[in-house]
Amino acid sequence: LPLVAEIRTDDYVGFTFFVGCMAMMAASVFFFLSMNNFDKKWRTSILVSGLITFIAAVHYWYMRDYWAANEASPTFFRYVDWILTVPLMCVEFYLILKVAGAKKSLMWKLIFLSVIMLITGYLGEAVYQDQAAIWGLISGIAYFVIVYEIWLGSAKKLAVQAGGYVLQAHKTLCWFVLVGWAIYPIGYMAGTPGWYEGIFDGLSMDVIYNIGDAVNKIGFGLVIYNLAVNIAAKKE
Amino acid sequence: LPLVAEIRTDDYVGFTFFVGCMAMMAASVFFFLSMNNFDKKWRTSILVSGLITFIAAVHYWYMRDYWAANEASPTFFRYVDWILTVPLMCVEFYLILKVAGAKKSLMWKLIFLSVIMLITGYLGEAVYQDQAAIWGLISGIAYFVIVYEIWLGSAKKLAVQAGGYVLQAHKTLCWFVLVGWAIYPIGYMAGTPGWYEGIFDGLSMDVIYNIGDAVNKIGFGLVIYNLAVNIAAKKE
Ligand SMILES: CC1=C(/C=C/C(C)=C/C=C/C(C)=C/C=O)C(C)(C)CCC1
Ligand SMILES: CC1=C(/C=C/C(C)=C/C=C/C(C)=C/C=O)C(C)(C)CCC1
Repeated sequence: LPLVAEIRTDDYVGFTFFVGCMAMMAASVFFFLSMNNFDKKWRTSILVSGLITFIAAVHYWYMRDYWAANEASPTFFRYVDWILTVPLMCVEFYLILKVAGAKKSLMWKLIFLSVIMLITGYLGEAVYQDQAAIWGLISGIAYFVIVYEIWLGSAKKLAVQAGGYVLQAHKTLCWFVLVGWAIYPIGYMAGTPGWYEGIFDGLSMDVIYNIGDAVNKIGFGLVIYNLAVNIAAKKE
Repeated sequence: LPLVAEIRTDDYVGFTFFVGCMAMMAASVFFFLSMNNFDKKWRTSILVSGLITFIAAVHYWYMRDYWAANEASPTFFRYVDWILTVPLMCVEFYLILKVAGAKKSLMWKLIFLSVIMLITGYLGEAVYQDQAAIWGLISGIAYFVIVYEIWLGSAKKLAVQAGGYVLQAHKTLCWFVLVGWAIYPIGYMAGTPGWYEGIFDGLSMDVIYNIGDAVNKIGFGLVIYNLAVNIAAKKE
């Protein structure tokens, strides 16, 4: 076994694991080292952005080697990653809405929904594969409740109350959840049996997941970074 | 031997080692990077919270690979971890009670008790297994003296004197010690021979230890973080 894995020139999955890993590391350093440039109020948000990419960086390091060693999808590690980072993204929603008086209960509601979404998704994808469709449905319902909560529910109301840059950032994050996160159920359908079989044949789901992760994790963090920059600029 | 270990989808021990390791790493970064947001008085406490999770992260990294390679309980490494982190938790009690004039002697007393508890526990679990019950008893007595000291003894008095948020945090930490730490003697009884044999059969002790460690170490740290947040908010 070599000390480092070789990557074939046409191994796009290996390539995206490698680039993804590097991008997550760089993003983490960026968020960690710039957090102290901002008001205390924003530091925790930027720190959490950094934690999300840091957790991903460690998992991508592992998944990169896993792919190189086994050429198999590291489904397990993806879910470990998500079960830690998706709840942290819910924390981000809470943190930016705190200015408008968001309560911890909103945070816990979102966290709870995201944990349900991921656990039922894992059960369908890795444990009870012959019942993938029904587990996916439950997972999808939890996902839609999250979408509802932030687009139209109490989170939306708080964002409107906060107004200005916070409302703007909230809206962008809502689009991330609606469009960026929708990549994941597509991956699920491509990788499990069910009535949807065949629709997504031939897609390399690892490449799509890797691009999705980079967009969702780094993008999410940059929206929050940008919010802090805008508010700091207004103050000066 | 593969570059990275594969984890079976139903290997819950491996799973909790992996998630535990990641969670400890993320928590360490969180504590280390947020310590400077607080008054000097609280920085050491938060730094120590970070040290506790950092020490655990390194041990979990090792234990994760140990489990993957041998599928055996890494008892030895658990005790190495505890002998470093449990005394640091005793330091935390002292640090938050310093505002009420806690003396170093309180800290040394708690540290001494925790070292007795862990050394006798190790002797029973790994060295003199045929006398596990008696070593467990000695260890348990030391544990109960710690519980007494913080719930009803001099530490309690200091917490009452300090009042407010400090008293509140002290109480939460006391519950951690009484309920969260009680997980460990249960693991001991499940893993060693004695009159208690059979009561805890069939429990996967590594899973329980791993959940316990995450709750006790990260939770403990967050209580102290939260205390610093509350006091900073009151000052503003
Ligand atoms: C709806 C649905 C799913 C949703 C997964 C999502 C939404 C994951 C989000 C991950 C993120 C945002 C990761 C980090 O950046 C599953 C579990 C695939 C199962 C099928 C149904
Ligand atoms: C009472 C007792 C024990 C107690 C262990 C404890 C209380 C360990 C605490 C560890 C912590 C808090 C770790 C880090 O978070 C032993 C040694 C199992 C031996 C049997 C009797």
